Amino acid sequence: MLGEYIKSGDFKGEKHVPVIEAPDTVKKNEWFEVEVSVGKEIPHPNLVEHHIAWIELYAMPEGAPYILRIGRYEFSPTLEEPVIKAKIKLEKNSKLIALSYCNIHGLWEGSKDVKVEE
Amino acid sequence: MLGEYIKSGDFKGEKHVPVIEAPDTVKKNEWFEVEVSVGKEIPHPNLVEHHIAWIELYAMPEGAPYILRIGRYEFSPTLEEPVIKAKIKLEKNSKLIALSYCNIHGLWEGSKDVKVEE
Amino acid sequence: MLGEYIKSGDFKGEKHVPVIEAPDTVKKNEWFEVEVSVGKEIPHPNLVEHHIAWIELYAMPEGAPYILRIGRYEFSPTLEEPVIKAKIKLEKNSKLIALSYCNIHGLWEGSKDVKVEE
Amino acid sequence: MLGEYIKSGDFKGEKHVPVIEAPDTVKKNEWFEVEVSVGKEIPHPNLVEHHIAWIELYAMPEGAPYILRIGRYEFSPTLEEPVIKAKIKLEKNSKLIALSYCNIHGLWEGSKDVKVEE
Ligand SMILES: [Fe+3]
Ligand SMILES: [Fe+3]
Ligand SMILES: [Fe+3]
Ligand SMILES: [Fe+3]
Repeated sequence: MLGEYIKSGDFKGEKHVPVIEAPDTVKKNEWFEVEVSVGKEIPHPNLVEHHIAWIELYAMPEGAPYILRIGRYEFSPTLEEPVIKAKIKLEKNSKLIALSYCNIHGLWEGSKDVKVEE
Repeated sequence: MLGEYIKSGDFKGEKHVPVIEAPDTVKKNEWFEVEVSVGKEIPHPNLVEHHIAWIELYAMPEGAPYILRIGRYEFSPTLEEPVIKAKIKLEKNSKLIALSYCNIHGLWEGSKDVKVEE
Repeated sequence: MLGEYIKSGDFKGEKHVPVIEAPDTVKKNEWFEVEVSVGKEIPHPNLVEHHIAWIELYAMPEGAPYILRIGRYEFSPTLEEPVIKAKIKLEKNSKLIALSYCNIHGLWEGSKDVKVEE
Repeated sequence: MLGEYIKSGDFKGEKHVPVIEAPDTVKKNEWFEVEVSVGKEIPHPNLVEHHIAWIELYAMPEGAPYILRIGRYEFSPTLEEPVIKAKIKLEKNSKLIALSYCNIHGLWEGSKDVKVEE
């Protein structure tokens, strides 16, 4: 259901796709910084009538049965850009997934695989 | 991506599935009440260690290119049950979709089709 | 600080003031329904340019050192009205406090005292 | 009401107080980075049973009638630390105010004045 309506694409050509910037490899259970943003290459409008309202960050650990919600970042149009740096940690190799919402163009997702070393 | 990790099922046998209760048919652009809940048939634990953290409500209008986010309801464990009555309206036949999150068992979805009459 | 900038008033004359409807007396630790709304007497605009974005519900138990956050309800303009029915419980006599945010007119609060019986 | 229950103090001695790090002076309507965190000097527990659930960032512009909500950052315990870097802009000299919530110790606030130059 919901998955059918979440769009994605190449963020270099499609301004709605959230981009996750994180190291390719991190240490198990050590805090690291991750940047999550929309409009990395092509800025998205930041207007009351048309804006990115929020980004939610998830991690899907390899082989795990359930997805983890890491954080949620809500932006107020014109006052804040949809880009955030957060401090997170992982226990296993994981796919980080960002879900973002444009008040006009709906849900979009982007992802980044992160390897976890002991 | 994210869609692959959202689980669903029959709420009568699986306590995590969000349930949407709304009229089968509503009037175009007229406010109506919708109840969204988790644990309708089999209660879900409501403990700090294990609880439903939030439910997000979406509408996918028939033939529309983008999904709409209607509302988001965050619950604090032990203080509130994951059930909410909201007042919404629709312009077209729509699929209402609820997405909920258990801090242990991840993302779950449920839906309800609502017909819209002039 | 923040408290200086939260406005209040009589909801019958001021459309921004959140209204809490709950029983005057409830049973200790038994679930009850509470309605929280903005615009009870005088409707507030529900437009992308001017709307109630969210309401947060708190409880301050008598004699307790810390306030409890019960729930948070986010509304998308034009799709949902800022009114919600929630299911909560209390352990002690408490002051329920609702905090709401208008994207133009800032923060507003309203409260309701609820007695708790064994 | 709510203002009476929001605590504050010196973040060097009280681990709950949110800290805002931003330039003392910024250019009018130019984006700048702000860091908002809890536990800057003395780390706060980050456990399911005891954690910082969210931080909300506000700006009160000098002489303005209403406060502005800039952003809201929600953290999931054990997966994310309560520290965020955001990208915001201001139009006038403003008091930035951060409000944070500990699931055990309630609401806390911290602030930082930022001067705005043409
Ligand atoms: Fe858009
Ligand atoms: Fe569960
Ligand atoms: Fe208003
Ligand atoms: Fe604490």
